[in-house]
Formats: sequence, C-alpha cells, structure tokens
Amino acid sequence: MGENLARKILKEHLVEGELVPGREIAIRIDQTLLQDATGTMAMLEFMATGIPRVKVGLAAQYVDHNLLQTDNKNADDHVFLATAAQKFGVHLSKPGNGVSHQVHLERFGVPGTTLLGADSHTPTAAGLGQLAIGAGGLDVALAMAGYPFHLTCPKIWGVKLTGQLQPWVSGKDVILEMLRRHTVKGGVGKIIEYYGPGIATLSATDRATIGNMGAELGATTTVFPSDDNTRAFLEAQGRGDVWRELSADADASYDEYDEIDLSQVVPLIACPSSPDNVVPVSEIEGLKVDQVIVGSSVNSSFRDLMTVCRILEGRRIAPGLAFHINPGSRQVLENVVAHGGFMMLLLAGGQVHQPGCLGCIGMGQAPGTNQVSLRTFPRNFPGRSGTKEDRVYLCSPETAAAAGVFGVVTDPRKLSELLPWPDVKNPDRYLVDDAGIQAPPEDGGPVEIVTGPNIVPFPEFPALPDQLDVEVIIKVGDNVSTDTIMPAGNKVLPFRSNIPAISKFVFEQADPEFAIRAAEKGDGAVVGGENYGQGSSREHAALAPRYLGIRVKIAKSFARIHRSNLINFGILPLVFKDPADYDRIKQGDRITIPRLRELTESGATEIPIRVDGAEIVTLLNASQRERRELVAGGLLNTVKEENHG
Amino acid sequence: MGENLARKILKEHLVEGELVPGREIAIRIDQTLLQDATGTMAMLEFMATGIPRVKVGLAAQYVDHNLLQTDNKNADDHVFLATAAQKFGVHLSKPGNGVSHQVHLERFGVPGTTLLGADSHTPTAAGLGQLAIGAGGLDVALAMAGYPFHLTCPKIWGVKLTGQLQPWVSGKDVILEMLRRHTVKGGVGKIIEYYGPGIATLSATDRATIGNMGAELGATTTVFPSDDNTRAFLEAQGRGDVWRELSADADASYDEYDEIDLSQVVPLIACPSSPDNVVPVSEIEGLKVDQVIVGSSVNSSFRDLMTVCRILEGRRIAPGLAFHINPGSRQVLENVVAHGGFMMLLLAGGQVHQPGCLGCIGMGQAPGTNQVSLRTFPRNFPGRSGTKEDRVYLCSPETAAAAGVFGVVTDPRKLSELLPWPDVKNPDRYLVDDAGIQAPPEDGGPVEIVTGPNIVPFPEFPALPDQLDVEVIIKVGDNVSTDTIMPAGNKVLPFRSNIPAISKFVFEQADPEFAIRAAEKGDGAVVGGENYGQGSSREHAALAPRYLGIRVKIAKSFARIHRSNLINFGILPLVFKDPADYDRIKQGDRITIPRLRELTESGATEIPIRVDGAEIVTLLNASQRERRELVAGGLLNTVKEENHG
Repeated sequence: MGENLARKILKEHLVEGELVPGREIAIRIDQTLLQDATGTMAMLEFMATGIPRVKVGLAAQYVDHNLLQTDNKNADDHVFLATAAQKFGVHLSKPGNGVSHQVHLERFGVPGTTLLGADSHTPTAAGLGQLAIGAGGLDVALAMAGYPFHLTCPKIWGVKLTGQLQPWVSGKDVILEMLRRHTVKGGVGKIIEYYGPGIATLSATDRATIGNMGAELGATTTVFPSDDNTRAFLEAQGRGDVWRELSADADASYDEYDEIDLSQVVPLIACPSSPDNVVPVSEIEGLKVDQVIVGSSVNSSFRDLMTVCRILEGRRIAPGLAFHINPGSRQVLENVVAHGGFMMLLLAGGQVHQPGCLGCIGMGQAPGTNQVSLRTFPRNFPGRSGTKEDRVYLCSPETAAAAGVFGVVTDPRKLSELLPWPDVKNPDRYLVDDAGIQAPPEDGGPVEIVTGPNIVPFPEFPALPDQLDVEVIIKVGDNVSTDTIMPAGNKVLPFRSNIPAISKFVFEQADPEFAIRAAEKGDGAVVGGENYGQGSSREHAALAPRYLGIRVKIAKSFARIHRSNLINFGILPLVFKDPADYDRIKQGDRITIPRLRELTESGATEIPIRVDGAEIVTLLNASQRERRELVAGGLLNTVKEENHG
Repeated sequence: MGENLARKILKEHLVEGELVPGREIAIRIDQTLLQDATGTMAMLEFMATGIPRVKVGLAAQYVDHNLLQTDNKNADDHVFLATAAQKFGVHLSKPGNGVSHQVHLERFGVPGTTLLGADSHTPTAAGLGQLAIGAGGLDVALAMAGYPFHLTCPKIWGVKLTGQLQPWVSGKDVILEMLRRHTVKGGVGKIIEYYGPGIATLSATDRATIGNMGAELGATTTVFPSDDNTRAFLEAQGRGDVWRELSADADASYDEYDEIDLSQVVPLIACPSSPDNVVPVSEIEGLKVDQVIVGSSVNSSFRDLMTVCRILEGRRIAPGLAFHINPGSRQVLENVVAHGGFMMLLLAGGQVHQPGCLGCIGMGQAPGTNQVSLRTFPRNFPGRSGTKEDRVYLCSPETAAAAGVFGVVTDPRKLSELLPWPDVKNPDRYLVDDAGIQAPPEDGGPVEIVTGPNIVPFPEFPALPDQLDVEVIIKVGDNVSTDTIMPAGNKVLPFRSNIPAISKFVFEQADPEFAIRAAEKGDGAVVGGENYGQGSSREHAALAPRYLGIRVKIAKSFARIHRSNLINFGILPLVFKDPADYDRIKQGDRITIPRLRELTESGATEIPIRVDGAEIVTLLNASQRERRELVAGGLLNTVKEENHG
C-alpha cells in the first residue's frame, strides 16, 4: 500500500525510533525559525551550548513581535538578535520586514524539508509542502545546534478536498470549517494532510492560511502536496529552483479521514472567545462592528490584502469604525503599492501599519470596552487583544472588508450587489526586495554580540547531587497552570531574556513571597496536585523556578509539556505513588531524598523520599535520555558535555 | 509710526486691557485645537461648564498622541472624543489622520485669526500667518465656551530675515540657529515676528517648522506675514478663499530686534539633551548613528518627506541603522504615495508608520541603550524618548537622510557627491482627502457621549467657606516641580481623564502615604518653599490635590503657571510675608484662617493665619477676577454660575 506524504517526509528525516503513532521518534531538522518574543531566550540557550555556528541548512531569526519600543528593551533585544544572528550564521529579518510566517514562505521555505520554529504558527509553511512544527525555544536552539527533534509520532489525518470555493469564500473559511467540525482539540497528536482534487484550486497562500490555523486544532502540523501551484509561487519569488513535486501515493492510506467539498463552504466566523466557536457569517449579520483588523499572522498575503483593496476601492470605511491593515511583510506591502492598492486603502480611510504581528499578539490595536472587533487573525482567546472581556471575532479578509463597508457583520457575498467578485490572484512575478533581510557573514568569529542591560546570559545550573535535602517552598492544589507559575503580561514579558529578573515573578499571584523565600532557602521543592503545569508551553515556568533553586517538584500528576520542560531544566518531576500521600506534606517541611543520583542513573522507577522522618514513595517515569539530562542538571548541560567532552 | 503684524492681530482681537507688555490682557479666540492627551480632560471641563455647543468659529479635536492601544483605555478615549466632538460641534480628526499641527495647517488654519491649542506646539500655525498660542486644557475648554483668553501682554520681537537658504539647508536649520543664539529661555514673554525680504524665500511649511519650534525658545508664539506663498499653500489645499494679505507696516517697530542672513545658515544639529545645545552638523560628523526618525510634530510635511524620498531613491539605508518615517498627516502620506515617494522609502529599507506623534512624545520608537538617535522632532529633553540616559539629536530632514545613507552623522551638503540637490517643492495642488475628518452634525443634541470606565466626569468642587480649619498634610522644600506633585509616565498618564484614579499618585515619590492621608483628613494644606510648582504646566498638579481636599498652599513663592492653575481649581496660593515663618509650621499642624472668604472677596492682600495658637501673616496677591474664581471654588464654578445665573 502507498505512503501518504506526511509519512514520506517523516521517513526521509527519521533518525531515531519507528513511525508508530504514540512512540517517541526523533527527526532531522533542515530549517529553524525564531521570532523575537521567544528568540532572545532561545539565542541565549544556543549561546550556552558553546557551539560556534548553527548546523542546520537555514536558520532564520525574525523580529516581528516586539515593535512598540516603549523603552530601551525592545531596541536592545533587536540589536542583540541582529548581532547574535551575524555571529552564529543566522539570517535576520529586521523589524518592519514582516511576520515570520509570511516572510519564511516568501524567501526561505523549501518543499519536503523540515522546519522547527519557536512559534505555534510555524505550520504556515505547509503552504509550500514543508513539514513545519512549532516547539519550545530550547528545542529550536538545539535544532540550530544540529540535534534532532524528539516528538511523539503523530497519527496522520487525511482530509480530502473536493470541488472549488465559491466567489467571496476563501482559505480562511476552509480552516474555520475544520474548527467548526473538530474543535480546538480535534488535531491533538495528529498531522493533518490535505489531499484530493480540490487542492489544485487553492493557491500557496490559501494553503498557508489553512496550515497556519491547523495550530488552532491542536495539530502537530499540517501538510499540503507540492504541485504546480507551489511551483508558481516559488517561481514568482524567483526561487523556482527549490521546487520539487511531492504528493501522497495514489493508494495512500491515513490513520483518520475527513472530507470537505469546497463548493459547499460558506463564509464563516469564529465568535468570542475561541477559534472553534464558529458559525456562518449570515447567522450574526447586522451586529455593529467597531474595529476591523486585516493581516498579521494569517491572511496578510498579497491576495488577501489586494482583495480588501479592491473591495474598498472608491468607497469609504463606515462611520465610527476603525479599519486597520497589518501587511504580512514588506514584500506584500510593496506589491500592494505597486498594484495601486495602498492608495485605495488610504482613500477609504484605512490605517495601514508597518508589517508585523502588532494586535495579533496584543501589541497594540486593543479594542475599547465592549467593542466588537473583527480580525483575520488566528486566535481570539479571552483578553489576548489586551482588553479585558473583549469581543473578538475571526473571519476572512472578504468578511472583514464587508464589515468595513457596511459597518455591521455582513455576509461578504452581499458585496456582489456593489462590485463584481474581484478574484485577486497572487502575482506571476513578485516585486522581490530583501532590504529587510540581513544574511550572516561567512565568518561570524569577529562579530561582537551587543547585549543591553536586560539581556542576561543563560544561568549555569549544577548537576544533580548524590542526595537532596530541601524545604517545601510552596504547596499548591490541582490544575495549577503555567500562567500561575510564571505570569505573562506587559509587566513580566519584557524580562523574558533576563532570568534573574523574571524569576522574581514566579507564583506572584499565588504567593508574592515565594521568590524571596525560595532564594533564601537555597535548594527547594514544590508540591502540587493533579495536572500540575497545564496550559501554555512557556519554558520559563520551569527555567525560572530552577533559577530560584527548585530541584524537585512532587505532584499527583504533571501536564505533558511542563513535565518535559522540567526535565529540560533539570528539575525532577516526581509523582506520588499513592496520591493520598499528598496530604502528608505541608509547606515548610524538609524533604530528604537519599541516593537520588544513583537511583536516577540506574533507571529506578521508585524514588523513596523522607519527609520529617516518615517515608513516602514517589515515581520517576523517565526514559534513559531524560535521566541523563536530569543527572547532568538539565539538557543544556548534556549538550555542553558532549561538545567539550 | 507703523504697527507690527503681531500687534495688529492682537489689537483686532483685544477685549480687555491695554497692549502694554507685562500687563494682563484678554483676547478673543477664533479657533481652538485639542489633542487626545490633553483633550479628554479639556472635554470633561467643557462638559462641566454646561454649555451645549462650542462658541468659537472652529473647534478641532485631534487624535494623534495615544495610538498604541495596549489596552481598552486609548480606544475608549477615542470613542469618547468622537462622540463628544459630535455633540458639542467640534471637528474630529480621527486616529491615523495625522498630527494636529500639520492637519490644522492643511485644513483649518486661517491667516490673521487667533488659535488657542492645548498643545505647546500650536504655534506651528504661524506658517499661515495665524496667531496661535499653546495653553492649558481648561483655558482651551473655556475658549471653546466663548470666553476670551487672558495672558500677559508679550513684547514683540522682530527677527529680520535676509538672503536665501543654500541647497541642503532648510527651515529647521533656521530655528536651530535661533536656539543656538538665544537658548530655550530666549523667547519667554515674547512673540517672535519674522519680517524682511528673506520671508518670500520660505514656503508655508518651512515657516510652520520655524513657528513650531518657537515653543522651544519659550516664546508665547511666532508670527509670519501672510503673502503669496501663504496663498499658494492655501490654494493648493483648495482653500484659497480664506487667504488674506497680512504684514507689518513698512515703518513698524519692535520691542526687540535680531537678524538672520539665510544664506549664512549652515546645517545645524541640537545635541543631547536640550533643543538649544546646537552645533554645526560638521562639528560632530562621523558619529555612528543607530536610529533615525523623520516626521511627527515638525518636518513631517510633503516637502520634508519627499526630500528624504529623493535622497533615499535607489539607495539602501546603512546597515545596522533603523530608519523610521512618521508622516505628519494622511494627506502628506497620500501625496508622497502619489509622487512615488512611498516606494522609494520602502525599497531603501525604511519603516513607514501611520501618521501621528508616535516617538515624538515617547509613544514607542524608543532607542536602545546608548544608541544615537537622530530625529527631526522639536524636543530632546532627557528621557523623553522613553529610554533613560538617551542620546537624541535634533536635525533637519536633509541631515537625517544623510545619516540614513552614510550610517554616521554627515553634513547633508556631502550628499551632493551622490545626487543633485532635489529642491523639492510642495505641490501646486495637493491631493485632498478628508476621509479622516468627521464634521459635527448641525444638531448635536441627540448624540450620546460614550464614556469608557476610565473616563470620569469632572469633579464638583464646593465654594470657599467662611473660614478654613485644615491640617498640614505635607511640608516640602524649595523648587518642588509639578513632576514631583503629579508624576507623568506610562503608569500615570492613562488616568489623565480620571481624577479619582490619578489623584492617588499625587506626591507619590516624595511621600507615598500623602494621597491616603489627605483623603482621610478632609480639607488640608500644603506648605512649600521657594519656586513651588516649577516645571511642566500640567493642570493635574492643581486639580488632583484639590480633589484630595487641599484648599490652601502656603509657600515662600510660586511658579507662575502653577499659581494660575491653583486659582483655576480654587486652591488659595498664599505667600509667607516673612519667609522665616516657613520654619514655624510643620507637617501635622492645624491651621485656622478666620474670615477667609470675606478677606478674599474684599481684596485684602494680608491674610492672617493661626498655627497652633500663634499668628502668621500671609499674602494673597490676586486680581479681582482671580478672587472671584477662588471664592467660587474654581474657575469652572464661576463659569457655571454665569451660565445658570
């Protein structure tokens, strides 16, 4: 029986394990992507490996998130990333050059290769037939250092596309249809592979839109074939030479199946406050709209923006409505200018911003109290816009433009009363301009990395001692999220490249004295209940506690990603063998773990601990690879040993 | 003997007093200007007068300062201002439509009329021969309500211009030459009137640049004649009908004189961190530049930006340098697009932002640590950029563009090695587009004003009681500034339309308990030394203490503007007759002022107060007008009485 495309690419890159869903595998990474919100720490982590130059085919560093520059920190980060990129052989996309996903698609993506990115929307590169996965900063830093990427082998979910989209319906509606059907959990543990005759009707940028928001389904990633449309896009970029044809075998099978008849897809909209809260636009027609934003992470391509331009051409934005446009890249903006679209936006009353993420990640463009905001963004989680109790809807550029014209939510097919369907195509040949991209020099040795006062080197962590004698610094309940452990927000985020500073905010809401107490006590322990560390994947929720001296966390159970992060940074994730033992420990207790190093190295599953004289049995479920990392004091230490050993 | 132009316009508008320098006069106001940072409070103050519609010829409200929208507050303010403008008959310039000064010049300014603006750079309108003065928010609110504006009659300072500027030298260099000669105090108490044959060589926008930064000389305002160049600009705007010729009489005299031979002006630059720290650009050539910003409050006109476009055309911004462009208005941006300039900026690697103030007022675009930033802005006070210990230089667009090309400070005349002097002129006919301007309806009655949770009505203040019995809540030393009384910055500024919230920050640095103590005690007093209330004119430094119950401030002396603000908000500014009595009062003392109302009304200069049994004599130096305001509990109360009495 034939192979599907996802398995073909995985097989080509497999370096450890077997392609059996649920088993751990490791794959070779061809390209890496960092943005500036995750990139400063990832770059510090790369620096900590001691490896002088990246070992992937292409490493790119984008500056697209922190463009507000309200004080020195953003600009300092930009210079740090620019100089570090030069030193280590990384391509830099400068502030104002655009959103990582759009620029990567334009200038770097290659069909059939693997891309690991420290951004959850990295799968946008599916538009080129690239296997692109989002991951944590340390994972990407190690991929840059030439290490394979470990993941649980996903199922492959084949989604057959038939038919062709109707006028005024576009790629965004296809992925909203997927979210409507399958919810934000529908893709967990899976790669979504689109196939079938409908594929040929979708441009590379439509496919990119669908790939981008596969992240909202929870999918590991999304894959599209590489075909004539892929070639047309690459040739229009002057990169036809990297094209190769890729598709599933004719008789390929999948672990799961679904099918979408594109001709039946209607304009859809995700209501507040989840990307899967999807209804037909027609169902909420007439709702007054206060703000519209087109662009950013998704729907910021030439086709998307130029479609909006054509709809607004010769018209005025409805009174009382703010209409913002965030081009996906400098290239998109330049091509829109060259086709006369920019002036159409201005004359209609639109506010065109420099290319970047901006409001998509809550960096400005926050709506007012109770305002309805329609955005072509991928996410509308509560408060993500920067405004509490926000009312953010997600839709296609066509639906966004219709709201701009009518001032209320309107099925974009109603626009046909005003103008013929513009049916905008991407250019046969883009105006290509790499003024915003800085290629690294052949020899980065002489480059001096510039670090502002807020950029602090990755801390040194000692190896696991023979035994531990620690105090319980805090005891918390069930379902504690990484937001509780390591808060985000405007106050804390600027310190993401400064572990000493950010560590002062650990558990700030739950216990404002935690950080002070932990630092005073030296080595410490945290005790938690069920599902400890759920939520966001942020690695700072492990890294900052480790900086404060936390060596062990004991819980009834751990959330998957946080458990990995704890091991990455050398914190033992111990699970109560008898959950009732949770009640036998309280804050301030002293815990002794004799022979800890020996037990960890030997592969022992049971780790007995002594709490004020009594013994409690805990479990350490970890692979040999993970035990090596724990003994070394963290993943970076094992890497450093390998490179100096 | 003939009359100079400034006196002619003053005479035409005089409603009280005599035109004798140093005496109080009052003038009729034809137009008013608010921006959003001062405008929310000014609009609340106007609402508090109870007057249903503005009584000036034209009132304009600009939204140009708070465009970052990091949470609901900015957008809430925008809606508040938009709806209040509709209700009260105010023209609204929407977010993204541009900087107040540039847009006012384009669409509203009229030669020979008076403009009062709640922004210190209001004198930009000098470019049209308008007499434009910056003032506090309450002053502008009352002008909107039809009240005349009181000021100390200034001296008229005649500055004769001869000759013609050399290539690569422009209006910015002329005003930098004035600052080089006369420092930031050189214009205090004066109107600067330019005259002479050199005038005819300067366009309306060059004159606007010179008028804008007259504020940096401390001048009351600047005046230019209205001549053929003025007419050309107005006709290019489709507003030729408002032009009239205006000039000084041939034999006019001035209170003071200076002369500039334009042909001798060289490219100049203001070094950190004062606009008068001016040297020839050639003196600091070679200094590495990290950031350049063109535009915002000044030098953001078509000529300015298009000159930069021509210089950058076909070139690349120097490596490692960030080059930002902030167009002065949507109109400027549209005309630059129409002339092909926008693409030149993009292809050179520039970052073009939406029209607005942005970095000019520290709203983003902050430089990194130790970075050298060249800006065409009017001010480089320490830290104003948002970065501590910043290194901000002020220069012309030509000098800014030269730094962009060479990466180091460069005399722009060196550009002649690369290209002929572009000699850009303003268009004969601008592309005019008022999509960003919302005219008010004929009848604002039905309009409902939308106030977000952070917009709190102007508080009610009771009249002066017969006698006061108050506690000294704080005693401070000499030279306490309004920054100490009412801090600014990111934390406090968002509450400028919320007196209950902002009052919690009064004296926060000096005494964090002040606000709590003042609120607990009911009525209170503040005791200060010499020059109490120096620095910024912010009215919140009087308004917020009054909200906390402060009824009297007793000091050795008061700074001029703060004293006016105290009276405006009904706080008695008493001065120790014997400065040594300062030492006889301490924090926590009870002060009784018997017969206070009677003494204030009667015109008594000596106000005896009792401090724990002993008597101290204080002085109240105030005009009858000011005494009426004090007795009423503040200027707004007198206005309300007049309108309801």
